[in-house]
Amino acid sequence: MPDPDPLAEFMTGFPPAADRRIRFDDGSFYAWPQMKWSFNHIEDLVPTRTVWRGDGASRPFEAGDPLDTAQIRFDTADGRTLGWDEAYDELHTDGLVVLHRGRLVHESYGGHGSADLPHVIMSCAKSFVGTIATWLVHEGSLDRDALVPTLIPELADSAWRDATVGQVLDMLVSMTFDEDYLDPGSEVYRYLRSAGMLPMAPDDPGPRSFYDYLPEVRPAGRHGEAFAYREPNINVLGWLVRRASGRGLADLVSERIWRHLGAERDAAFMLDPSGAETTMTMTVRDFARFGEMIRCGGRVGDVQVVPEAVADDPFLGGDPDLFTGAGPETMAGGSYRSQWWIRHIDAPEQARQGSQGDSHGSTRPMARGAHGQFLYVDRANQVVIARTGSSRLPPSTLLDPVVFPLFDAVIAELTSAPVDDAP
Amino acid sequence: MPDPDPLAEFMTGFPPAADRRIRFDDGSFYAWPQMKWSFNHIEDLVPTRTVWRGDGASRPFEAGDPLDTAQIRFDTADGRTLGWDEAYDELHTDGLVVLHRGRLVHESYGGHGSADLPHVIMSCAKSFVGTIATWLVHEGSLDRDALVPTLIPELADSAWRDATVGQVLDMLVSMTFDEDYLDPGSEVYRYLRSAGMLPMAPDDPGPRSFYDYLPEVRPAGRHGEAFAYREPNINVLGWLVRRASGRGLADLVSERIWRHLGAERDAAFMLDPSGAETTMTMTVRDFARFGEMIRCGGRVGDVQVVPEAVADDPFLGGDPDLFTGAGPETMAGGSYRSQWWIRHIDAPEQARQGSQGDSHGSTRPMARGAHGQFLYVDRANQVVIARTGSSRLPPSTLLDPVVFPLFDAVIAELTSAPVDDAP
Repeated sequence: MPDPDPLAEFMTGFPPAADRRIRFDDGSFYAWPQMKWSFNHIEDLVPTRTVWRGDGASRPFEAGDPLDTAQIRFDTADGRTLGWDEAYDELHTDGLVVLHRGRLVHESYGGHGSADLPHVIMSCAKSFVGTIATWLVHEGSLDRDALVPTLIPELADSAWRDATVGQVLDMLVSMTFDEDYLDPGSEVYRYLRSAGMLPMAPDDPGPRSFYDYLPEVRPAGRHGEAFAYREPNINVLGWLVRRASGRGLADLVSERIWRHLGAERDAAFMLDPSGAETTMTMTVRDFARFGEMIRCGGRVGDVQVVPEAVADDPFLGGDPDLFTGAGPETMAGGSYRSQWWIRHIDAPEQARQGSQGDSHGSTRPMARGAHGQFLYVDRANQVVIARTGSSRLPPSTLLDPVVFPLFDAVIAELTSAPVDDAP
Repeated sequence: MPDPDPLAEFMTGFPPAADRRIRFDDGSFYAWPQMKWSFNHIEDLVPTRTVWRGDGASRPFEAGDPLDTAQIRFDTADGRTLGWDEAYDELHTDGLVVLHRGRLVHESYGGHGSADLPHVIMSCAKSFVGTIATWLVHEGSLDRDALVPTLIPELADSAWRDATVGQVLDMLVSMTFDEDYLDPGSEVYRYLRSAGMLPMAPDDPGPRSFYDYLPEVRPAGRHGEAFAYREPNINVLGWLVRRASGRGLADLVSERIWRHLGAERDAAFMLDPSGAETTMTMTVRDFARFGEMIRCGGRVGDVQVVPEAVADDPFLGGDPDLFTGAGPETMAGGSYRSQWWIRHIDAPEQARQGSQGDSHGSTRPMARGAHGQFLYVDRANQVVIARTGSSRLPPSTLLDPVVFPLFDAVIAELTSAPVDDAP
């Protein structure tokens, strides 16, 4: 059987042809290539909660010298040499925005993506919740050292019974949770049904919200000894944030971040069956605006939106010793902190890439999500890369052998040009 | 059993208590008083399609002399005398905005309503689609005299086989359709399930989109002889608009109207299972902005957004002779045109209310929707009233004996004050 056409049209015409319709409840939204349409039309498929951008005008991007994509040719980590177009297609790119020194130097769309369409960012939403949680810690309303059950007694018998808030933030909690996205029988799929991310049959005996799911998760060892990327931690973190603030995530992200970015579009959260927020959707342009704010120490123009210490937090990096052997091989030498993945660039490379010597010049925080969602923040080179995609298989690490060399090539190309001024 | 508390809290807390959760698929969203929450949180409950407001800033309201609600006391059509607060509560008001001469003279919220929350406007969305359809007629891409099957061959054997576009617009199509909202076995409920407005059991043998439903609707007599408010006409009209324009309703409303109103929030369409737009949600403030644009002949400030002839169209009124005995008794003497309901005010009352003698001074177009949604446009008195509600029973006509005298009392109060200038 030939591979399905990745650019097949869906949901066009009035009505769409029966075999071109996409629904959530029959699972077609998550078939491939249907997901290439679905990821750009999540609000059409499931309930969502708006993250309002406020009643003001958006903040336009200043245009920079366009990235010369014809110059991009790079060696992948699996031993191939790719040009721009080959990489673009292989990565099933839906949207790509590159900012250099705050200016828009590249914007393009593939598949069913467009500048107008919010795209699901999958686990990249963790970095938004991590930013809010870090902010609550910063202002003293959430304690990194507190045990989870002090805020969530419902978890007193679960894997989080003796975990700290900080261990949740940094993914250092040991639990029994099989997160093999390539195995349909994996626990992660039962979890995703409870979280409203996949359809649940009416007679499914499983839990019907993550509030019901989380107390069942069993411990598996000592916390704090090794990085362990386990999906349920984000739901515990969201729960902690809600309990500590008394607010929902959509309100917090809107009031504290989204209304101050100059976003063009509202963002939105997907919801579990109890109405609790899970992942997010946003345009790639607005995704990049968030990254640019983090790059700029929490500032948007002259306005301090997020406290500098909060925006700086991911650049501190996590503990690479806890990550080694536990994180994905494609991120060897990296770390994880406050719901951000961190690439650590060694000093010589840092120097080569033109670090300006700020204290966090060797770290590259990134948000990353299934099927190829990335937000890459490089302070040393003053670059932000936001990209969305719809790769067939969920694990974003499958893309790393191409994505990281591609990002490096883009940054090298941008920083090879003479600098004429500095904002 | 005592009446349920209309102000009961739902979906509060993390998680909400089990008996305080609201879902679409279990039907709880449409129980009462749950619907008082649901109507303000439609996007949380079902898929929706965004009607983007554009990337600009909203257009603030200029403040006018506040309506003195303490002066409002009026006789209802069923022989009672009510003050403001009594009427407000009896009508289960969720939101109310009154503009006089373009200025905001009243804004208030009840129940679970707030300035921030988009509210479902039920059949008031018909007047948006009617405006778009009238516009397509105006520009020559839709022919009022064309037979429906020339654009929609799928309806060649249905009630619309020999109906014209104009008859659909004016609700003059005869069909077999039992629209008794007070009878749960009524055909209208089967229709609403097919349209995604009510949950459908997996084994329901009924049609699964209105595209599948409409061809089944049978004729019942000659068209054009009497007003017949039948819900499926709006889906035929939407289908005609999509076929004539090649565009979806959300795109059309966004591009032609919503981006030019100075709206504060995106609007949204609910969707049937095939992804076709049905009714809309919007804040009451933005609902009023739409009415104000219609009042002002299609202009927003100095900008002609909708062609004047299109905005003027509902003020021409429909044929009262076709309405008499066929429309609701509460609207005796009224008419219907292009998906707007029209109150006809007789000349003496018009004079008393201070008509400025424009050619449409005796007509009061209004959008109206189930459970108490109204948009009332009075050019003669330069008043726009937008209100949303969540009355327990669907038929908005049940509210007419209070709503119309209330509107009249508000307008009389506003126009009793001396006029010091005229925009």
